[in-house]
Amino acid sequence: MRTQVAIVGAGPAGLLLGQLLHKAGIDNIILERHTGDYVLSRIRAGIIEQVCIDLMDEAGVGARMHREGLVHGGIDLLFGGRRHRIDMNGLTGGKNVMVYGQTELTRDLMDARREQQLPIVYEALNVAVSDFDTARPRVTYEKDGQKHEIQCDFIAGCDGFHGVCRASAPRSAIREYEKVYPFGWLGLLSETPPVHDELIYANSPRGFALCSMRSHTRSRYYVQVPLTEKVEEWSDDAFWQELKLRLDPEAREKLVTGPSIEKSIAPLRSFVTEPLRFGRMFLAGDAGHIVPPTGAKGLNLAATDVKYLSSAFIEHYREKSDAGLDTYSQRCLSRIWKAERFSWWFTGLMHRFPGEGEIAQKFQEAELDYLVHSRAASTVMAENYVGLPL
Amino acid sequence: MRTQVAIVGAGPAGLLLGQLLHKAGIDNIILERHTGDYVLSRIRAGIIEQVCIDLMDEAGVGARMHREGLVHGGIDLLFGGRRHRIDMNGLTGGKNVMVYGQTELTRDLMDARREQQLPIVYEALNVAVSDFDTARPRVTYEKDGQKHEIQCDFIAGCDGFHGVCRASAPRSAIREYEKVYPFGWLGLLSETPPVHDELIYANSPRGFALCSMRSHTRSRYYVQVPLTEKVEEWSDDAFWQELKLRLDPEAREKLVTGPSIEKSIAPLRSFVTEPLRFGRMFLAGDAGHIVPPTGAKGLNLAATDVKYLSSAFIEHYREKSDAGLDTYSQRCLSRIWKAERFSWWFTGLMHRFPGEGEIAQKFQEAELDYLVHSRAASTVMAENYVGLPL
Repeated sequence: MRTQVAIVGAGPAGLLLGQLLHKAGIDNIILERHTGDYVLSRIRAGIIEQVCIDLMDEAGVGARMHREGLVHGGIDLLFGGRRHRIDMNGLTGGKNVMVYGQTELTRDLMDARREQQLPIVYEALNVAVSDFDTARPRVTYEKDGQKHEIQCDFIAGCDGFHGVCRASAPRSAIREYEKVYPFGWLGLLSETPPVHDELIYANSPRGFALCSMRSHTRSRYYVQVPLTEKVEEWSDDAFWQELKLRLDPEAREKLVTGPSIEKSIAPLRSFVTEPLRFGRMFLAGDAGHIVPPTGAKGLNLAATDVKYLSSAFIEHYREKSDAGLDTYSQRCLSRIWKAERFSWWFTGLMHRFPGEGEIAQKFQEAELDYLVHSRAASTVMAENYVGLPL
Repeated sequence: MRTQVAIVGAGPAGLLLGQLLHKAGIDNIILERHTGDYVLSRIRAGIIEQVCIDLMDEAGVGARMHREGLVHGGIDLLFGGRRHRIDMNGLTGGKNVMVYGQTELTRDLMDARREQQLPIVYEALNVAVSDFDTARPRVTYEKDGQKHEIQCDFIAGCDGFHGVCRASAPRSAIREYEKVYPFGWLGLLSETPPVHDELIYANSPRGFALCSMRSHTRSRYYVQVPLTEKVEEWSDDAFWQELKLRLDPEAREKLVTGPSIEKSIAPLRSFVTEPLRFGRMFLAGDAGHIVPPTGAKGLNLAATDVKYLSSAFIEHYREKSDAGLDTYSQRCLSRIWKAERFSWWFTGLMHRFPGEGEIAQKFQEAELDYLVHSRAASTVMAENYVGLPL
């Protein structure tokens, strides 16, 4: 088989890249280790920035997102038992974010790919990338017991943190930065109306909590838990009880509980790979960088990468210019580090860190108090939350 | 002996309080463990906010400060080998800070007290405070082998972090918050012109450095050092060499070196006592709270305390109202925690922390890059540096 761009990974980054390249007339094949149903079963973030909305539109798959997505112009910060709204829209000259689950966005992209009958191989096993330091990169995989080889011009590594692409980059050429946080997020998805019409980020003495949503009838809640906790040991009742203890009286009163559709514990990690390009292989999304989920930057950074990478490929084929490919790493990393910084800061502001002592909570409360009362500090929060300029 | 307010400690907080009370016709005696010369030999901060300038004027001792102090409307942040100016004046609607050494300010206050022949006891040994939970507090001390007792209405504890006042508060009534930083500041004072007309705060891979000054002809420089370093092991030459390695090429070129007048290593600490009032004893300045020196908030917080405390005493005697005394702790602590937050944040942004890994420096550089390029983030820096509203 031969294609122009071999894309490893059928998450939102790979699918979005494939769609944008197809619209520009660039051949691509997507390989995915799992089934499509498995990919859709992974519950991820649900807040998208304008950069991501624009890219979905550009890819021609934004119709349902605009129909069903909820536009949010603010968030609530809860601390010291009281809620304070950050008017993101007002503080950024009219910018918003949209609530639209990563699962829904992935589904829209999968549907489009299927309708257009574009090549995608699910359950592609033992994927291996090679020769990306030459003009003729290759990707091999096994499917139904048969070995296959794809010859391509470029490889796009959209295969996530545990994927094969970054792992195949020469160790001498790669630099990795990492911070692992000493707690996780226990998340619960339920078919219940959200407790509030915007998100509530809560700093409580018992730990962080987040009231999020996927729609007017589907809620997503989180509580910070020690890494030693096991999801099997958390009944729905125990979850709701713990969540309530971290909310303000009004939210506690209003909260509608119900059976969980999904419940899981996710670890928190900051991680960046430098560079994101290795010859003719390019990393995009979680393959190159991870943020802790506080502030929902993960999917939006993946969208930024895909925006730069699709433009760079289009420039290469249409204009015979490699300027976009040559500056890909640098352009992405500039925005990535800013979002990594924001996610690390917002995580530090909202969570209990074991062993940091009582002064840490006092610093947090002082910072939150300052944040909600200073226009400059509120604007810093707002402009980062809606997404810094590209 | 009998007085209205017994002030323990003749640093800037005690002296300023004494002066303000005297101007309002309130009797006070200051006790100081050391000699006046010793107090003046302690080299401390040199950046004062408007709150401190106003208070010196109110105390009638601001003439030399206005004559000799240098007005600064900005600072330079140095990172990634390049300097970026924060235009504090422009970002805060015209606010500035003033360079005027704590030593000079203390000298002005001492001179005024001597001229007015107000009671101050130097080398007062074994100072003890008692009965401040009654209407008749007492302070006892020894001087030249004689025991003395002062009966008073109130005790003002301006005797610093290691003083007797906080140590005499009942343990059950007091809550202390503390963070000790894993490094110190090695400072050098020299009779040389400053390298730049404003301060340079430097984040370098070798650690923090600060180019500060006391006047057009006297400079104060600092480099971050491990706590294990001994000042005796740092020759002047070694200091200048290390400082240069942390500066940008232009500053390195321009730096005028010379023999040190003073050289010392100071530890960095965040510390807050709650409350600041125990019956008829009130803590002010370092007796109640310590900030790391990054951002120069220590003296300015002491001035804030003195402002609130002097007003409260005046209100008590003139208007027979204890409202100011009753809210003293709360009003001070609100501003203290904000300045503690700022000092902790600025310290964290600029220093190398052992064991934090390379990602920590990347977060710092991303934050600094964001800070100097976002108007909102620059404003956050500026409004905190010049001092948040009272």
